[in-house]
Formats: sequence, structure tokens, C-alpha cells
Amino acid sequence: MSYESYFQSHREAQLEELKQWLRIPSISALSSHAGDITTAASWLAESLTRAGLNNVEIMPTVGNPVVYADYIHAPGKPTVLVYGHYDVQPVDPLHLWKTPPFEPEIRDEKIYARGATDDKGQVFIHIKAIEAILSEEGTLPVNIKLCLEGEEEIGSPSLPKFLETNKDKLSCDAVLVSDTSLLERGRPAICTGLRGLCSLEIVVNTANTDLHSGSYGGAVPNSLHAIVELLASLHDSRGRVAVEGFYEGVPELSPLMREEFSKQGVDENKIREGLGLEALYGEEGYSFVERVGARPTLELNGVYGGFQGEGSKTVIPKEAHAKITCRLVGEQDPQKTLDRIEKHLNERVQPGVRLTVKQMEKANAFNIDPSHPILQKAADAYGSVYGTRALFTKDGGSIPIMAAFSRVLESPVVLMGFGLDDENLHAPNEHFNLENFDKGLLTIVQFLKSL
Amino acid sequence: MSYESYFQSHREAQLEELKQWLRIPSISALSSHAGDITTAASWLAESLTRAGLNNVEIMPTVGNPVVYADYIHAPGKPTVLVYGHYDVQPVDPLHLWKTPPFEPEIRDEKIYARGATDDKGQVFIHIKAIEAILSEEGTLPVNIKLCLEGEEEIGSPSLPKFLETNKDKLSCDAVLVSDTSLLERGRPAICTGLRGLCSLEIVVNTANTDLHSGSYGGAVPNSLHAIVELLASLHDSRGRVAVEGFYEGVPELSPLMREEFSKQGVDENKIREGLGLEALYGEEGYSFVERVGARPTLELNGVYGGFQGEGSKTVIPKEAHAKITCRLVGEQDPQKTLDRIEKHLNERVQPGVRLTVKQMEKANAFNIDPSHPILQKAADAYGSVYGTRALFTKDGGSIPIMAAFSRVLESPVVLMGFGLDDENLHAPNEHFNLENFDKGLLTIVQFLKSL
Repeated sequence: MSYESYFQSHREAQLEELKQWLRIPSISALSSHAGDITTAASWLAESLTRAGLNNVEIMPTVGNPVVYADYIHAPGKPTVLVYGHYDVQPVDPLHLWKTPPFEPEIRDEKIYARGATDDKGQVFIHIKAIEAILSEEGTLPVNIKLCLEGEEEIGSPSLPKFLETNKDKLSCDAVLVSDTSLLERGRPAICTGLRGLCSLEIVVNTANTDLHSGSYGGAVPNSLHAIVELLASLHDSRGRVAVEGFYEGVPELSPLMREEFSKQGVDENKIREGLGLEALYGEEGYSFVERVGARPTLELNGVYGGFQGEGSKTVIPKEAHAKITCRLVGEQDPQKTLDRIEKHLNERVQPGVRLTVKQMEKANAFNIDPSHPILQKAADAYGSVYGTRALFTKDGGSIPIMAAFSRVLESPVVLMGFGLDDENLHAPNEHFNLENFDKGLLTIVQFLKSL
Repeated sequence: MSYESYFQSHREAQLEELKQWLRIPSISALSSHAGDITTAASWLAESLTRAGLNNVEIMPTVGNPVVYADYIHAPGKPTVLVYGHYDVQPVDPLHLWKTPPFEPEIRDEKIYARGATDDKGQVFIHIKAIEAILSEEGTLPVNIKLCLEGEEEIGSPSLPKFLETNKDKLSCDAVLVSDTSLLERGRPAICTGLRGLCSLEIVVNTANTDLHSGSYGGAVPNSLHAIVELLASLHDSRGRVAVEGFYEGVPELSPLMREEFSKQGVDENKIREGLGLEALYGEEGYSFVERVGARPTLELNGVYGGFQGEGSKTVIPKEAHAKITCRLVGEQDPQKTLDRIEKHLNERVQPGVRLTVKQMEKANAFNIDPSHPILQKAADAYGSVYGTRALFTKDGGSIPIMAAFSRVLESPVVLMGFGLDDENLHAPNEHFNLENFDKGLLTIVQFLKSL
């Protein structure tokens, strides 16, 4: 039977199984979901066993467990380590979801659920591709290891240590990851660069209690005034980050790189219209793809303090909060960047205001050479299924652990993504296009067989 | 029996009755509490009837009803109209309350509950003072009318029209209000000035969905960046409001007024320490009492958008919100002030950002001449009970309806407050000191008998 026929006849059952998995609300950022993390890891282990993999193991870390499995029966052939994650992003604002985030539904050949594209749906492709080859051929053409973690959405805090500790067990010739996107429908891409990430939380405190603006207004510090002033100071009027030294380690774009970016043929008007925006916005002097692929950012992800209810309330709030993440490129140092932001904020705190900064995630940017033979074979595999060879691109996202994989395991990392940028990852109504689920299965089979 | 003995022997029963009233969560800002507003009005009507007042009536308005009662049996004597409000502020953040806001508890001779001091506790003093005189003397030494509304905490939107419509029914020689504070424990004050108020809400919208900061970060507008920039632009570095024309109509402080303010003998260090602040903050060149009593403000009462949960989330939020109130003084025009702020914000909106401004409350500042005989008698009444004659002060709060009372009923307004500034009105753990409950009862009896 051809793999096309195989996947066609198994499609309904596989989608049912995917829905099962998407029903588990394995949100790593919220401690109240710790039980769901355990459930998701167990579900995964069972699924890997059913697929025919060996040595399936739920390996504890100081955080959430890593699910491991392998199939090492192809002596003389390369070993591919598949990496992915079974945790998902939080779901708020919940009221903007058309159907509940953990009740998967297929509409218009798209499956809607939190984790559908990031990353449960894409991990599922690898399991089902392996299951298909084992079912059809009785063995695999390469050696396979899987390493599936549950902390990617909180910056993979336990994984670097886990990689060091299990360096021999995980040794491989290439790391294979599906957690990125096509350029657009029908145009596959292999990402050869990812931005780094660092994050922080700030809390601004003023008086020891909320105060009435009649009795105190105009004569005491207001935590909200203090925080908006601090936050507004982080950018200048030209869209640049105003923190001293922030751009250290950022490579200037060469004419060649600009040429590469423009090859992607991104239509900025189409993006703008799709987002319902009157104008895009960003650092002066760069195009959309350059801003996302090659420039660092500092983004406010959440700001809150004071009254949020209906109507008005004449209160001077005693505390205010902000959550901030930076995307980093080139040689920018995550720790130095956090320290610089902390210094910038501390130098600007109003009298009477206390500022607390909590540094969180830290991940370096990641770059890989597209001329490596294994990346070339991956591009060919896409070509045979999509009818278009994959372009080598740079992605604005971060998979914080990529640099660690490359360093600890000393192997090239192959980012073969099947998502699309408009699939609302990290937002309400996340979904995954079944067209790329189907083609993804064939592409992975093709890639493994070509090695 | 002396009134001291009367109130002593009735104290326990009266406090139980006050607790009953404080249990009704009559929050006017939240439409979900509409039923509690009705309950509070009914409770009040029953209480006025029990006190011996006549013509008790729950009078509908387009908003929440006004509770009316009178006792007109002293021909040739002045008529005093008692005004107060039975609605209360919202209670969030709920987790900061030591005991639930609508389960009143007496600790350390203070009664804790939302509305304890603002304004249910103070309204209750008037009812019980009248009840005491009627019980002891069979009649009242003056003519009394009560007009108790349920929309004060949302800016009294229905009352001006109600006053116009019922001008004859409400006609009086003085309006008596207890909704302000003593200077500090043992130092009574009669407020002869209140700040005006205006309020607005703003919403900032960017893309039509929340976006992933990896795929879009640095290349699209972020609603939080836009809002903090707008909000930070509202003040300059010297604590002044930076909106053009904002200070129009604000009287300069004369040396005489500064002298009056300094008489209050406010210890700024004590205030600062009580609030747990390293420094006070405000417009340069003014003292604490001047800032609160005679200078206008623009305060952020709430700012929110994006992720507020535990941990971090790499989201670019599509919308952000802010709630703003201004305290106004002198001849500042509330409508003009709102229009100026709206213009200021509209002129500063980033490309790609949509701003919506909703104007809300509008109330003029209020000032009254302390030399009026009825204010002098009020000051004497305090003197006979507290052992210290009341000072004439200016308060930073707003009772938006005071100017309307003064204008429509053409009567002086006497603000005899029994609260204290540190009683957490509008904040968690609101309370009312029973010392001033006891002295308040005697002061009001004394005042009414002196007219």
C-alpha cells in the first residue's frame, strides 16, 4: 500500500486520537494544571508504545517530566533525535474562543484547540509517521530517538541540565523539530535561525493600601503613573528600544541577507489587511520580515493595576504589574539584556515608588548553516510532497532549547515546521490546517526514508 | 434622661441595626447589584418609619430611587434637609479584605465593612439622632427633610433632575451632609470646599486578534506600548498635568489661603510614614494639604491589557484599557476638561492604533462661605461635644451633587463629617471609628437643638 493510501485509510482514527490528546489542558505556566501535565505525559508514553517504539520512559526532571522513546535497529544508518513539547500556552482571554480551547473541533478542514499547531499537532505527525513506516515495512530506515518535554512554553528551565545528564543516551546525528511554520500555504520553509528570548516581571508599589483619590489625589505617588512612565521609557519615538546597550551583539543586515529576506516575497499590505490594521509599526528602516527575522524586540505582554470593573472607581492603586519579553538576535546576551533593562528601570523610578524586578527566562538566539547535507535532504523531502522545495528562512520565534541541543549534542538541528503563521498560536482560536497535517505525515516519512 | 445615657443604653441595639444595613451589598457601579440597591432603599424606608419620621417614600428616578422622609411640625423654625447616600463603592481587590466586606465586624472599637464610613454609617447617625430626639422630647426642635440617594458613588447622574422636579418638596434653609472627615482624631472640621470630578475610560485597539510575539513581535503595533505612551504623556516630569488648557479656571493660592491651610498643622512626615512611603509625590511648589485641597489632579485608577496570569506569555495583546478621573477646583469646567484630555490623547495616537474615549461623570467644584450663621452653629455643636470647635477646611474629595443642591435649593450646604481619612474609604478594609459614631450622634442632636 502507498503511504498516501495508508494515511487516507487511517485518517479518521488518527484525528480522533489527536482530539483525545488536545483535550488534555497541559498548560505549563499555571501550577493548577500540574495534574494535566502528568496526564499528557502518560498519554504520550502510551501513544509511543502503541506506535511500536521501544524503551518508552517518562523521565523525571526537577520540573515537568521528559517523555523518551527510541527504535535503534538500523546499524550503520544515522540516528535522528525528534524533539517536541507536550505543554501548551494559557488560554485567556477565554471569552474570545469560538469553541472551548480544550474541546477540539474540526471546522473547514482545520482542527481548533489550544496546542493544535503549537506543538501537539506537529509532535503527533512524527509519532504517526513512525507508526506508519513500522506498520508498512516492519522496521525503520534510520535510528530514531524521541525527546518530548513539558516546559517549552515556560522557557524549558529543566531541559539544559537534562541534556547534559543524558548526553550519551540522546547522542544523535541530527535533531529534528517540527515547531515552526511554512512561509504560507503551499510554500514550505526550513528555519535556519531563531530569535533568543528573555523575560521579566515588574511590580511597582507605592502606599501600603489603596487610597481614595479625594483624600490623597495629587499628593501621593500613584503606582499606575509610575509604571506607565517606566514602561513608556523603554522605547523611543522611532520604535527602537531605548535601553542603553540593548543592541550590543546585534549584527547589521548585509545587502546579501536583505536580498534573502526579500526573496520570501512577503506582501506587507496583505499582512496588514489580514490583521485589520491601518498601519504596521516597528523600528524605522526595516521591512516586516527583517523586523521579525533579524531584529530584536522588547514587548509588553501584560500590564495591570487598579480598578478593572464596570464604571469608574476613584482609587489610587497601591501596586501595578507588567510582564515583558525580549526577542534577541545574533550574539545578544540574554542575561546582560535583563540586567540592562533592570538598570534602566531602576534609574527612572519616581520618588516614593518601590520597584521589584523578577528576571525569568533566558535563551540565546540560534543559527544553523543551511548547506549541511541533512538540511538539503529535508528541503528535498518537502519538495517531493509539496511540489516546491523548502526555502531556508529565519523565524522570529524562539525555541529556547535549540541552542542547547546544538551545543550539548553537537548535532545540526533541522526545523521542519508544518504550521502557518495565522493559526493563532498563543492566541484564542488556535488551529492547525489538516492539509499540512496530511502533507506533514508524508514529508516526514519521505525525509526519514531518504537518509 | 440625658442624651449621653440614651445613646449608651441604645448602643448595642443600634450597632446591630447598623450591621444589618451594612450587610446589603448596594454597589451602584455594578449592574449585577441592582437588586441590592432596591433592598437597601427598602431597608432605609423602614428604618426612617421606625424612627418616627412622616411621609416616608421611595421615589423613583431614571436610575436608582431616592428615599425621602420628613417631619414638619415646628412652625417658624428653620427647615434642614439631610442629604446622604445608601450606595457603596465596589470591593475589589477582595483578597485584601481581612473580613468579608459585607459581613460587618467590630474590632478594636471600629466597625469594618464596605460603606461603614462612606456613607451608610454617617447617614445612620442622622436617623438615630432624630429617633433619639423624638423619643425623648416627642417632637423635633426644627423641621427636617431627608433626601437619601443611591447613585453617589457613580456621580449622582439622576439627582440634578430629581432636585429640579422636586424643588418645592425639598425647599429648605440649609442642606446638612455627613460624608466628609475630621481633620484627625479629636479635631472636628467643617468642609467649605470640595473638588469637582470628571471621569473617562479609554480603550486602545490594534490588530483584530492577539498575536504571537515570535511571529509578529517588532513589526506590528502593540496595544500596551500605545497605551503606556499615551498615559505617560498626561503628566510632565514636575508632577503637573500636561494637557493643554487643563489649569484654566484654577485659582492661584493667595498668601491668606496658604495661611489657612497651614493652620491645619498637618504633619507630612506622619502621613508619609502612615502610608509606608519613602516620599510623598505631587505638583512642585505645593504642600500636602494644598495639593489635596486646592489643586486639580488627573489620576489613573485602572490600567489593564494582555496577560495577567502566573509566569510569562509571549503575546502581543490586541487591546488595552485605562480608567481616569480628574479632581477639579475653582472654575475648572468638567466638560471642557474631558474634551481637552480627549484631544490630547487623539493627537498622540501611534500609527495603526485605534483609540476610543468614553466620557463619564462630570461635576463642578463647590465652595461655601464659612461666615454663614448656620455654619457657625455647626462649628459650636462640634465644640460642645468634642471639646474643640470645628475648623473650616477644604476637602480634596468630591460630592458631585453639592453644587447642584446649593444652586437649585438656594441654601447653604453644611458638611458635618464624622469620618477619618485613614478609614480606607474606597479601599479594602473600610471601617468607621465608633468613637465618632458616638460623638456624631450627640453632635447632630446638639446642632438640631441649637437652630
